Formats: sequence, C-alpha cells, structure tokens
Amino acid sequence: MSERSEVARRGPGRRPGGADTRGEILAAARASFAARGYDGTTLRGVARDAEVDPALVHHYFGGKEQLFVAAMELPFNPAVAVPAVIAGDIDELGERFVRFFLSIWDDPVKREPFLALMRSAAGHEQAAAMMREFVTSALLARLAAEIDLPDARLRVAAAAAQLIGVAMLRYIIQVEAIASASEDELVALLAPTVQRYLTGS
Amino acid sequence: MSERSEVARRGPGRRPGGADTRGEILAAARASFAARGYDGTTLRGVARDAEVDPALVHHYFGGKEQLFVAAMELPFNPAVAVPAVIAGDIDELGERFVRFFLSIWDDPVKREPFLALMRSAAGHEQAAAMMREFVTSALLARLAAEIDLPDARLRVAAAAAQLIGVAMLRYIIQVEAIASASEDELVALLAPTVQRYLTGS
Repeated sequence: MSERSEVARRGPGRRPGGADTRGEILAAARASFAARGYDGTTLRGVARDAEVDPALVHHYFGGKEQLFVAAMELPFNPAVAVPAVIAGDIDELGERFVRFFLSIWDDPVKREPFLALMRSAAGHEQAAAMMREFVTSALLARLAAEIDLPDARLRVAAAAAQLIGVAMLRYIIQVEAIASASEDELVALLAPTVQRYLTGS
Repeated sequence: MSERSEVARRGPGRRPGGADTRGEILAAARASFAARGYDGTTLRGVARDAEVDPALVHHYFGGKEQLFVAAMELPFNPAVAVPAVIAGDIDELGERFVRFFLSIWDDPVKREPFLALMRSAAGHEQAAAMMREFVTSALLARLAAEIDLPDARLRVAAAAAQLIGVAMLRYIIQVEAIASASEDELVALLAPTVQRYLTGS
C-alpha cells in the first residue's frame, strides 16, 4: 500500500534521493535478481527500474554484491566475512569456517534469508541460477583464490556441500542427531573435513 | 481420468485384487504419506483409503518401507541396499558409499524421485517431516546400528549431510566445479570424509 501511494506521488522521470528511495532501489533490485539472475543484473538496470540516477545506487550500495546482500537482507557481507574467516592460523581454518557457519545458522534471525534462498533455489530453476551465480562469485571464487591447490574450486565446493548439507538436515529437514547436536560436537566432527578440503591435510 | 472411471466402476465395500488395485493402493499410500507423514501412515489405513483388504497391501508390498519405496518410485530398497553397501572391506566403506550415492544421482531417471523429495522437503514442512521420518527409519537408524562408535547417529547424519549437500550443489544449484566433476574426482575427495565419519579413522 505504501508503495502504491508512493507511485501516485511520483512525477515523471528520475527522482532525487528521498526517504523511500533506498527502499525502492532494493525492491527494484530484488525484482531484477529474481527475473534476470545475479550475473544478469546491473546497477544501471536497477537504477532505471527504480527511476533514480545510477549514481544514487552507487552512493547507497557501492556495488552489485552489496546491493544483493542488502536486497536479500543477508546478515553478513561476503567481501568482509570471507577474508576475516581466512585470516589467522591456517591449522584452525576448518574450525573457523564451521564456527562462522554455525554462528549464522544457529541464529533464527540470521538464518532466515538463507533458509528462504535455499527453499526457493530447491524449487525454482531461476532462483537456483541466482543462488548459483551469487555463491560462485561472492563465496566460492573468492575462497578458491586463496587456496593454493590444483583443484581449489572443487575443494571449496566440497566444503560448501558439507555445510549446506548440514543446513539442510539440521534446520530444514531436522534430522536427529544433527538437529540437536551442540556447536562443539559439530565442530569436532566437521572441522577436520573442511580443514582437509581447504588445506589438503 | 483413468482414476475417475475406475471410481465410477467401483461398487461399494472392499474389492478383490484387480488390474488397477496395485495402482490404487499406491495412490492412497502417496496421499497418506503426504498428509500423515511416514510415521503416521499405517498399512491398515492405506488399505481402508484404497478400499481393499489389508492382506492385499501386505501381499503386494510386504511392509510400510517397501510401500513407501514403491509409492515414491525410489530406485532402490534401503532394506536391501544398506546391508549390501556395508558388506565388504571396512577400509573401503567410504568409497562404496560415495559410489553408490553417485550411481543413483548421476542417473537422470534414478535421481528424479530424490530430486522431487528434496524439492518438496525444502519448501513444505509436511514433506520435510515425511522425508525426516523415512530417512531416519530406513537409512540413518539402520546404518547407525552397524557402527560401533558412541556418537553413531551423529556420525551417520554428518555423512548424509555431506552427500545431500553434494546433491544440492551438483544437481540442483549446479555449482562449479562440483557439477562437472567426474565420479573418480568426487570419490577421491569425498570418500575419506565418509570413511572418517563412519569408522572414526
């Protein structure tokens, strides 16, 4: 309803940044990501759909990745989080990854956008393409670039598969004993797996 | 349409086993599994819904697990497949599991019922409950009973999570490099993980 009244108040052509402009850019971004995928969405196209100057989209969101993070209400920015998790003792890389993953997914508010992404990706080819493109560009390629092993892309994907499978069984299908396991039990079991994939040992 | 004409031809009360009886039992079973879950479905209830004698359901399907396998058109019977995969050299248990998993999922026909189950489980709580109950009873509990480790249930679930995550990324979201990896590449990477979960080493 507020969107409708906003449209009624809207004059022709581009509008300056106002109270609802940020929200309208986000709505246009969500529609574009859903219809054209992550790779097919451009800041210029979103600006056109929202009837604002492209500079305003840059001003609010910086780049496409941050725009996606904001539009999907993701609880972290991969451009910041991935380097933060990688930094530190290489022998504890697997544990840091598992703990970071659980810190998001064990929080009912933070996991909600990822649950929604996984649910729609499982059921709809377009949503799957959007998730594939974002996960590849924002997470997997960034992570693989840090890994000095010949099959880095496959290793990163195998680690992601382990954690996405845990998300599926622990939070969506809620299978025991993984649904009720403590964080430390999961770290003890999963960290060596992620460690081996990412470091080869 | 054939179901409708079958209903028109149907007299009152229980019918003897006929050409379409097996199909009507399966239709009643699918409806019951979807509405009442796996645990909440009984052979007696399915027989009542299909208007046949319970002995006929036993005659055609033996038990609830085989009825589920037939109703969902699963490409294997866990009661047969799980013992077959477990039997053999313990040092190659992880590899046997990964190869069995890929033999199902790499086949477009055999993976179809599992794709459908995962898609509906991701989106619908009732479908998730049905999958949870069946996977727990037919796969996880049966497998955990063979594993002589204190946290057998959690270990089996972690192995299942690894493989379900691979199914998600390789076949549903289709992320590289896992979507195009060969069977042998996946075995080399995943078998040690499953081996460690199931045997502790």
